Amino acid sequence: MMDDAELADRLLAGDRRALSRAITLVESGRTDHRDRAAALLDRLAGEGRQALRLGLSGTPGVGKSTFIEAFGLHLVERAHKVAVLAVDPSSARTGGSILGDKTRMERLTRAPGAFIRPSPSQTELGGVARRTRESIALCEAAGFDTVLIETVGVGQSETMVAEMSDIFVLLLAPGGGDELQGVKRGIMEIADLILVNKADGPLEAEARRTCADYAGALRLLRRREGDAPGFPKALTVSAVSGAGIEEAWAQIGALASWRRENGHWDRRRAAQAGHWFDDAVRHGIMERLRADPRIKAALREARGAVAEGEAAPGAAAARVLTLLFEAAPTPGGPPARG
Amino acid sequence: MMDDAELADRLLAGDRRALSRAITLVESGRTDHRDRAAALLDRLAGEGRQALRLGLSGTPGVGKSTFIEAFGLHLVERAHKVAVLAVDPSSARTGGSILGDKTRMERLTRAPGAFIRPSPSQTELGGVARRTRESIALCEAAGFDTVLIETVGVGQSETMVAEMSDIFVLLLAPGGGDELQGVKRGIMEIADLILVNKADGPLEAEARRTCADYAGALRLLRRREGDAPGFPKALTVSAVSGAGIEEAWAQIGALASWRRENGHWDRRRAAQAGHWFDDAVRHGIMERLRADPRIKAALREARGAVAEGEAAPGAAAARVLTLLFEAAPTPGGPPARG
Repeated sequence: MMDDAELADRLLAGDRRALSRAITLVESGRTDHRDRAAALLDRLAGEGRQALRLGLSGTPGVGKSTFIEAFGLHLVERAHKVAVLAVDPSSARTGGSILGDKTRMERLTRAPGAFIRPSPSQTELGGVARRTRESIALCEAAGFDTVLIETVGVGQSETMVAEMSDIFVLLLAPGGGDELQGVKRGIMEIADLILVNKADGPLEAEARRTCADYAGALRLLRRREGDAPGFPKALTVSAVSGAGIEEAWAQIGALASWRRENGHWDRRRAAQAGHWFDDAVRHGIMERLRADPRIKAALREARGAVAEGEAAPGAAAARVLTLLFEAAPTPGGPPARG
Repeated sequence: MMDDAELADRLLAGDRRALSRAITLVESGRTDHRDRAAALLDRLAGEGRQALRLGLSGTPGVGKSTFIEAFGLHLVERAHKVAVLAVDPSSARTGGSILGDKTRMERLTRAPGAFIRPSPSQTELGGVARRTRESIALCEAAGFDTVLIETVGVGQSETMVAEMSDIFVLLLAPGGGDELQGVKRGIMEIADLILVNKADGPLEAEARRTCADYAGALRLLRRREGDAPGFPKALTVSAVSGAGIEEAWAQIGALASWRRENGHWDRRRAAQAGHWFDDAVRHGIMERLRADPRIKAALREARGAVAEGEAAPGAAAARVLTLLFEAAPTPGGPPARG
């Protein structure tokens, strides 16, 4: 059995089994595992290794697995090391975990420069965020220069993935009915690059038309912090023929370089890390407090009364806080008030 | 000087000066004021008075003040009691507070059934949310049956206002250049009703065209929880001629009734109150902890190291938590871990 120092060393050396094991620690529900994971991540943070964190969203049917395989192979053939992580907060509900079936990316799975990690089955979005961010950090430490974080285009998972990415890519199919359009509406605001897939065979013309439509729609968006000239951008690709994949990668590289040169990259990374820290502090405090059955019961009861309209939220919260800080006054903290 | 029991009694009797004073307590930066406000709100929650909470967003230039005056007068003439609250998280930056100039709603300000409260000058969005929610609750307790919460169409303030409203209305001007379109794109997702203003004189035809465009775009959106058949909807109004205002109010009423009958209303209110409680607990805990200079310094230092990439967010948070819970262990809480 590997001890944690050995695990760190092997992970830093790029050992994929060590990386898998470290991610398992991060995903574990056991406190001792997660404490070990936290210590490991802290040790690795000092190494300062950075990958391009590439968020990718696409609804079922756009050919996401095929695209990831083609895109990933394009990169590993050019000596890149590519890790693919899946975020599927709905897996517990839908039963079908994305990337669960690695056979759909058979060639990429076998490529020496690639690492593919399926989405763990779980439900809580907050927990998914922490686990994914920590898994990204582990992949970076293991020397992967590109970490692709893929998610389905449903609910809040895209926003979450966009917030932990350097660059966010939206994969779409040509045309698309009303339902598909509805899915896309909110997400356009967070995309850096829109790729219209299936630009091959009979769908090629339709893909070009769809791409032109999106390019037009993107021009209506307000310019955002970190938008290089010409971005966000829409391009066509074909995961099957490989057309457009080189251009897509070149555009991603151009945007990344522009952001690095203009300070956006570091600023965004620092803000993301700060957020992550704030989340971890808040989450950790609430977790420790809820470990006390008396506090847990008080929270549940107060929240119920508030939801029923029997108590005002602020006052109910103040009562729970009083219980809390009377039980354990912080040094120098203000006196508890009803 | 009124004591708090008298303040509550007078507020419940609909005294607008008492309402003003109570809102001042809510907006105060002083802890003792806010504790009094919390106690007052808790006392008032038991009364179970509910207003229609109507969120309204519109960018400068759409005629928002004129619309609110015409809309508010329409309601007070029909024996409604209308409170108008302004949310302007950017007031500190832009210098211009919305509703700061009450003379723009001269007639509504003087109407006996109306209460208008300008936006206080402050910066932090979280603080704005708490203050606004508490001010809404005070208006409800004072017997106002409609509380209009207005905000400018910038940044995250609309989402915040939409989350504390029963129904969210977006006010737009006819046509609009690219910039305006960009502003609207994200917000369409949260609107229950789009009103295209200035449907009078030379702009009437353009307003109808714009309205039809939006009606088409709204049909592309996915149906959301709480969408009555036919909603979200787009209508034209004229704040100047009054055309369409009666219809807008009728549509708002129809949507509210449908939501009440179908359980959406109560469910949404309970969820909002629960959220508010969670926010208050989290905020209160962080506030009390930061009151300890040692903890405050530790938080600032750890966050800085994380932003610089020198420490992993999770481990840095764990270290701060250890400091915190070692200083003040909760009864029955887990032992502190590094």
